[in-house]
Amino acid sequence: MELLVTLDRDAPDPLHRQLERELRDAVCEGRLASGAALPSTRALASQLGLSRGVVVEAYEQLVAEGYLTSLPGGATRISTRIAARPPVATSRSEATRHRIDLGYGRPDVTEFPRQSWLRSLRRVLNEAPSDRLSYLDMRGAPELRETLTSYLNRVRGTVTHPEHVVICNGFAQGLGLVSQLLQGRGKGTIAIEDPGQPEPALVARVHGLTTVPVPIDDEGIVVEALRRTNADMVVVTPAHQFPTGAVLSPGRRAELVAWAADGDRLILEDDYDREPIGAVHGLAPDHVIYAGSASKTLAPGLRLGWLAVPGRLVDELAAIKESTDRGSASLEQLAFADFLERGEFDHHLRRMRPIYRARRDTLLAALRRHLPELEPVGASAGLHVIAWLPAGIDEQPLVQGAARAGVGIYGLRPYHSVQATARPGLLFGYGTATETEIEEGIRVVGEAFDAVRSAPTAAATGR
Amino acid sequence: MELLVTLDRDAPDPLHRQLERELRDAVCEGRLASGAALPSTRALASQLGLSRGVVVEAYEQLVAEGYLTSLPGGATRISTRIAARPPVATSRSEATRHRIDLGYGRPDVTEFPRQSWLRSLRRVLNEAPSDRLSYLDMRGAPELRETLTSYLNRVRGTVTHPEHVVICNGFAQGLGLVSQLLQGRGKGTIAIEDPGQPEPALVARVHGLTTVPVPIDDEGIVVEALRRTNADMVVVTPAHQFPTGAVLSPGRRAELVAWAADGDRLILEDDYDREPIGAVHGLAPDHVIYAGSASKTLAPGLRLGWLAVPGRLVDELAAIKESTDRGSASLEQLAFADFLERGEFDHHLRRMRPIYRARRDTLLAALRRHLPELEPVGASAGLHVIAWLPAGIDEQPLVQGAARAGVGIYGLRPYHSVQATARPGLLFGYGTATETEIEEGIRVVGEAFDAVRSAPTAAATGR
Repeated sequence: MELLVTLDRDAPDPLHRQLERELRDAVCEGRLASGAALPSTRALASQLGLSRGVVVEAYEQLVAEGYLTSLPGGATRISTRIAARPPVATSRSEATRHRIDLGYGRPDVTEFPRQSWLRSLRRVLNEAPSDRLSYLDMRGAPELRETLTSYLNRVRGTVTHPEHVVICNGFAQGLGLVSQLLQGRGKGTIAIEDPGQPEPALVARVHGLTTVPVPIDDEGIVVEALRRTNADMVVVTPAHQFPTGAVLSPGRRAELVAWAADGDRLILEDDYDREPIGAVHGLAPDHVIYAGSASKTLAPGLRLGWLAVPGRLVDELAAIKESTDRGSASLEQLAFADFLERGEFDHHLRRMRPIYRARRDTLLAALRRHLPELEPVGASAGLHVIAWLPAGIDEQPLVQGAARAGVGIYGLRPYHSVQATARPGLLFGYGTATETEIEEGIRVVGEAFDAVRSAPTAAATGR
Repeated sequence: MELLVTLDRDAPDPLHRQLERELRDAVCEGRLASGAALPSTRALASQLGLSRGVVVEAYEQLVAEGYLTSLPGGATRISTRIAARPPVATSRSEATRHRIDLGYGRPDVTEFPRQSWLRSLRRVLNEAPSDRLSYLDMRGAPELRETLTSYLNRVRGTVTHPEHVVICNGFAQGLGLVSQLLQGRGKGTIAIEDPGQPEPALVARVHGLTTVPVPIDDEGIVVEALRRTNADMVVVTPAHQFPTGAVLSPGRRAELVAWAADGDRLILEDDYDREPIGAVHGLAPDHVIYAGSASKTLAPGLRLGWLAVPGRLVDELAAIKESTDRGSASLEQLAFADFLERGEFDHHLRRMRPIYRARRDTLLAALRRHLPELEPVGASAGLHVIAWLPAGIDEQPLVQGAARAGVGIYGLRPYHSVQATARPGLLFGYGTATETEIEEGIRVVGEAFDAVRSAPTAAATGR
């Protein structure tokens, strides 16, 4: 048997480790056939110019690991038990990259305040006590819960306490934790906004809960319709309904809170954007789970989110967080606490506000110019605008037409639970596109719109 | 009505925001009674020396948020819908702090390489492309999957590929992801080692799976007993069985792999410690999910873990990771990739090895000196040692006696699934205690042991 083995006498790794690795690779790659006998340690040592001890050590290690078998008095053989190296699964296709993407949901990460975030990380690594690098309280680092509480109470109008805050890895995880909590209490139905975000329905289903859609109008969620459901919890976006942009009216806020209080129900308030209107949480902190995250304000890659929960639920949620992943990463939490504490977060938001406002203004102006028949709706805030389509024009051909010209826009259908009543519309995100890209993108959408309108419809041509 | 409002004309916040916050706090704290009428905007403006517009703006905001109600032609009133601020739930009791803790499972975080980790973070923040701060491929950052794959294949003897690696937030989350995968396939039984870690049973139960214990002997898990179960997956610690320290023998490795291959079953290999013996993964990469983490080698606070999975499962696991928390934090992943790439991880492990070895030697010497009747067992590796107790001595009085003297040690009962056959023993961790603490701690345990042995037993005194 010929063994092709490459050893590097100058490498930092000891020779027996190198030999071991070479042999293991040869076995795994099928170069050494299953069941074949290896040269004796003496023969291989002489062939490679090694001391016999080196070969013995490598063989012994591979016998212990199951690659080789060795019977007393017999040859050392390649184990017959080794499976062939499996083929590499083909990588999933990447999401289509558009030349210009007017998709929703991502802030402009090119503006992430890298240097001030690094300063916060440096302070944390230089100053944090060592125990902060071990497992933390499952609710999260006390420093962050403290700072975040005073920030949210001051800026978002919540009424919470550091003991009632649970740090999580963004909204999706928060939703999962709350779903598990409901599941554990045998409460099974979550009301969701229609149209609304698709995540709550997906996550609820994973945890064996059912969802019931509740319609949205200009004042936000229709609480009268919510009352007719058997929901134990509702997921709402009161400050800026997603995707319609409706602001929950004062009357509806009162009705919503009454709905929760009347039946010991919960409101999960997704404060996904930073809007000028305060949180519902402050009106009924014992019935509202307030959820926020840094994904739309700083960067999704941080995976930083938080829940401010009624005191009676906090221990249970912390226990669920523990069984889920034993708490969130500590350096990121401490860095964010420092970043908030020093006003860097406010500074970043203030810096971004005129940038996003200019993009929104550009978008609205471009819509007026290139798509005058569309009706933009919703509050002038956030990172997106929606517009209803005129009668007879559907989303899909428009989205496809724009995509063929390299521009990503998105229809509203995927956000509707009840497709039959879904009014066709488009969603334009301006978080990541420049003003030039927005102007150009909308011009392209305008051309797609004209093409769709002038095309003979299937009905007209009798097809 | 007297309104006590404090405004700071020099503060950066505009006056209407300050007034709004003061009023909101007064409502939430019950200082302004539910239903009470507020002064007119004109009256309050004159009382506070503000322009009327400031008061109008603050009232309007609070009406929008639901704190105040305002009917045309009527007074602005405090909403009757506001719940009283709920009491703060009392904080859960902290885990008892021992003077000396010989608990298991934590590395010495005081030795965390803060400066080299900071250097990696700095490089990442200075050099990483912006899209790395947005949502990543749900399997994790490609840089880390690449570096980790070559590291694991080289050092741990796995045979994996970057496409087959899924980054997660530590072992507990990895276990949760895999449990969800089994649940989704309608496969419901997980075999666990007995004695073994308690986490797999807890996490499996959360996901509606059942567990079946399989005994351990000197060669690790008894595969013959595993064959008699109906398990779809087994969770094993082959390199260094937890807690017994047994190393899975070559014969058992082959049997285990055959068990999995015979019935399309899975092996979840928890490579929790960094041990000299290679992973089972390399023998059957199509049947083994290899799990590792930085919790025992660097710091639990990083929440960095990884799964190397059979190619046919990777898309499904990535989708489960997405619905769980939309991926792990990116900066930490990129920093770890840099840290690995530059050899800092190996450097840290090499630096820690003699430190832990000296602690283990001190522990074993102290056991011989102060507790000669105990039998330490298991491989000389990892961060803990276990010892069986002589007949007639139970764990609980010893653990309690040591705790009264300020020393934390732990019994093995909590790690047994089948209590009837559980042999009493103690687990000594040396990850976080200094050599002086270990010597002193074992001396105290020795005293507790003598006290327990000389105490009249319940049986002897007839009680």
